[in-house]
Amino acid sequence: MTSKDGFSWTKADGLRPGIPCIGAIQPSSNIKSTDTEFDVIVVGAGYAGLTAARDTSVAGLKVLLLEARDRIGGRSWSSNIDGYPYEMGGTWVYWGQATIWREIARYGMQDELESSYDFSRGINRFLLASAEGTQSFTHDEENALMKTCLSKFFNVDGKDGRDALPMPHSAHLTPSDRRFDNMSVADRLVEIQHNLTPNERLCVEGFVLLCSGATLATTSFYEMLHWWALSGHTYEGCINHLVRFKFRGGQSSFAVRFFEEALATGNLSYALSQPVASVEDGAHKITVTTRSGQAFIAKYMISAMPLNVLSNVAFNPPLKEGKATAAKIGHVNQTIKVHAEILDRDLRSFTGISYSHNGLIYGFGDGETPAGNTHVVAFGGQHKHFHPEDDINRTISEFQGFTPMHVERVVFHNWSRDEFAKGAWFFPAPGLLASHFEELRARQGNIFFASSDWASGWRSFIDGAIEEGTRAAANVRADMIGQSKN
Amino acid sequence: MTSKDGFSWTKADGLRPGIPCIGAIQPSSNIKSTDTEFDVIVVGAGYAGLTAARDTSVAGLKVLLLEARDRIGGRSWSSNIDGYPYEMGGTWVYWGQATIWREIARYGMQDELESSYDFSRGINRFLLASAEGTQSFTHDEENALMKTCLSKFFNVDGKDGRDALPMPHSAHLTPSDRRFDNMSVADRLVEIQHNLTPNERLCVEGFVLLCSGATLATTSFYEMLHWWALSGHTYEGCINHLVRFKFRGGQSSFAVRFFEEALATGNLSYALSQPVASVEDGAHKITVTTRSGQAFIAKYMISAMPLNVLSNVAFNPPLKEGKATAAKIGHVNQTIKVHAEILDRDLRSFTGISYSHNGLIYGFGDGETPAGNTHVVAFGGQHKHFHPEDDINRTISEFQGFTPMHVERVVFHNWSRDEFAKGAWFFPAPGLLASHFEELRARQGNIFFASSDWASGWRSFIDGAIEEGTRAAANVRADMIGQSKN
Repeated sequence: MTSKDGFSWTKADGLRPGIPCIGAIQPSSNIKSTDTEFDVIVVGAGYAGLTAARDTSVAGLKVLLLEARDRIGGRSWSSNIDGYPYEMGGTWVYWGQATIWREIARYGMQDELESSYDFSRGINRFLLASAEGTQSFTHDEENALMKTCLSKFFNVDGKDGRDALPMPHSAHLTPSDRRFDNMSVADRLVEIQHNLTPNERLCVEGFVLLCSGATLATTSFYEMLHWWALSGHTYEGCINHLVRFKFRGGQSSFAVRFFEEALATGNLSYALSQPVASVEDGAHKITVTTRSGQAFIAKYMISAMPLNVLSNVAFNPPLKEGKATAAKIGHVNQTIKVHAEILDRDLRSFTGISYSHNGLIYGFGDGETPAGNTHVVAFGGQHKHFHPEDDINRTISEFQGFTPMHVERVVFHNWSRDEFAKGAWFFPAPGLLASHFEELRARQGNIFFASSDWASGWRSFIDGAIEEGTRAAANVRADMIGQSKN
Repeated sequence: MTSKDGFSWTKADGLRPGIPCIGAIQPSSNIKSTDTEFDVIVVGAGYAGLTAARDTSVAGLKVLLLEARDRIGGRSWSSNIDGYPYEMGGTWVYWGQATIWREIARYGMQDELESSYDFSRGINRFLLASAEGTQSFTHDEENALMKTCLSKFFNVDGKDGRDALPMPHSAHLTPSDRRFDNMSVADRLVEIQHNLTPNERLCVEGFVLLCSGATLATTSFYEMLHWWALSGHTYEGCINHLVRFKFRGGQSSFAVRFFEEALATGNLSYALSQPVASVEDGAHKITVTTRSGQAFIAKYMISAMPLNVLSNVAFNPPLKEGKATAAKIGHVNQTIKVHAEILDRDLRSFTGISYSHNGLIYGFGDGETPAGNTHVVAFGGQHKHFHPEDDINRTISEFQGFTPMHVERVVFHNWSRDEFAKGAWFFPAPGLLASHFEELRARQGNIFFASSDWASGWRSFIDGAIEEGTRAAANVRADMIGQSKN
């Protein structure tokens, strides 16, 4: 099964669009021509939509799942190429992320994880490259440096943020949260500029841009604090929660479990490659019309589309003002995530920051391919943004910004040119959450809005998507029971 | 609503059995006389059974939930007395505990938590009492002392246990795990005895006995390491995960959500105060007979009873050898958990260890009652075990082992004399898990066994109970689908 999404490049084959994905479900639709009315229509088959569709179909509702792409998984999917899974988007999972871990345990997949890191051999070093040259550190020195600089960055209260954000899973922002959200990371760096060494500054900026895919001026300081608080207010917690464990079989091996469970109920109709054009919310029914002109009717709709593409769909009545404004503003994450298979076996254990002169800012050895080569993953964003497919030689040269390496293969998904994502994981500029967080989470008529982009906990993560899909399904069911009582 | 479980004492009323509980559901049964056949019978309405009953009834199965007690919640329940919730058993929750946090988020209760601690006033100190007298420390000094002694205790690999137990949620024990499980805490203390100061030794022993409710010789060192690894290998993680956040409305306010959701499906029959006497697993049906002689039939049974009471029920065919042996051995936790309402308002911020001369080993200010008094919770166990109801004056004097206080009210549940628990949360003596962990988790015929006592992650915790109830429900559903295919 192959998706139109993603690109791969090798010297032999050149650049090719479309890569394998087990999430490109066949057949692409199971809708019967007589099936036009449903209890609930779920729009979007990322983890929020998959979870919502699964929970409602398991509960006996008649469900239609519509997905614009030719695959499930949304902003998280993996491509197995020559026996090795490359992760195009959301990758890492951890038992400190509650809603995803509950699913991993439920599907009995807790022993199907592996660590991205293997600090055992070769250039077992942290390489800190700047325009002035490259410094090399042990990983213990890297940890000490990151720990110190992040502690300074997040220490807004003398307790590394513990007092400022004690309850990072709250569904409400406090006045203090809003104050921090109206600050950018650039603002925060001004506050502590005399307290950072040059290396600490490189590291904190590199770390922030890895998280936000934006610029220092367009990254909300609150959202960074929120990630930090979710991670337990420590650098070790950040590593564990953000970037350590991934599925041996790739993310899509997890996504298909949700889909298959829903399908097995017999209550799920679905169609891939069916972008939705419009949604009409009448008093007692919702009509969802696809770009291809098919119309479906349901009592409820769960919109599981990302913030940046909500405006793709014509809602009638239109989205309420707060939600519409937030959708228009959008989020600012334009992460470039690129994988390279390289011949250099001694780079399995390297980590690196290459900043601020390089387009790929953060990179590290992420695995070993069946051919015995090293798999390196690297991240860029709005800072020195580029489109990897436009000039593959430049893309390859960006990898050299960490250390020289021999690139045999490149694999990536360009989220910025993806009309169904318009960016990577959610990351807000200052003020967006302070002004619109609660509005983004609110229902409108019989439409519930589920997206990791406005999760209360691990917002931006797969975990947040599952949290939101779970919430939407529970709300639809509660509403139906409430109605049946009335 | 009042349960027969638990005791309360005041000077005015003396000792009284039975205390209020919103988990004492009325009516106590909704079984219709014609209802004798079910898809699944769940035995036990603790969190494992509640979750299993909810998930199966939501999925459209016809479910019977049988509970021996007059209330739901099992080893976790709260009693609201004069407007204040006292927690009789499992209390604390955290977002690092995945399966319970998923439920908290799903029920929208993430903002209904409060911290047990309020380190703000009065005797804002850690009191370390031994036969030689009482030392007083600041809470910062307490943290430093606990951090140091626990780090020494768990540092089996030069990395505070990080290399020894990197994946604490695995469903399998490694050879290294088994080796640690065949060690007792007493064995471990011999290894590090020359490396502990007298105060460090008091603190590490007090902490261990708080966790296990056993003795140093009967506490598995592996299980302690497992708690430590689950908590992120840090003392801060232990505090956050084990003893910090509780429900403002008490645990039973959470348990009833599971029950109510299941009931609302219309698929749940239930009966409280119906202990099960025997289970007969025929080829195609299971017959469950209560002590009162009522017989119910189902395709599947989910046994959600604790390890220590599995032997209460006559299984035919009998439990397989490994499971039967483990049930006969049982676990060793005989925790005494006692609450006191005291007049001393300046004790809200104290924490204390009183060891090894005292029957209550660990205590601290846990809240402020509506009357403005302080609520203190204290823990003992097999070390100098006593039954609080046998001599209430002794019980009150045990509280004085921390510091003098004026006790107005005592509330507790004696788990050791509870025929449906025979102990508190699961804690294994050395060797039990090494020999029987996988066997405890295994199904037998069409009976699935769900209990926090053999959860793979937060074993012994409410989180583990929900993990297990979730697993059992998923297994029953998967099995039914599998059968319908055959």
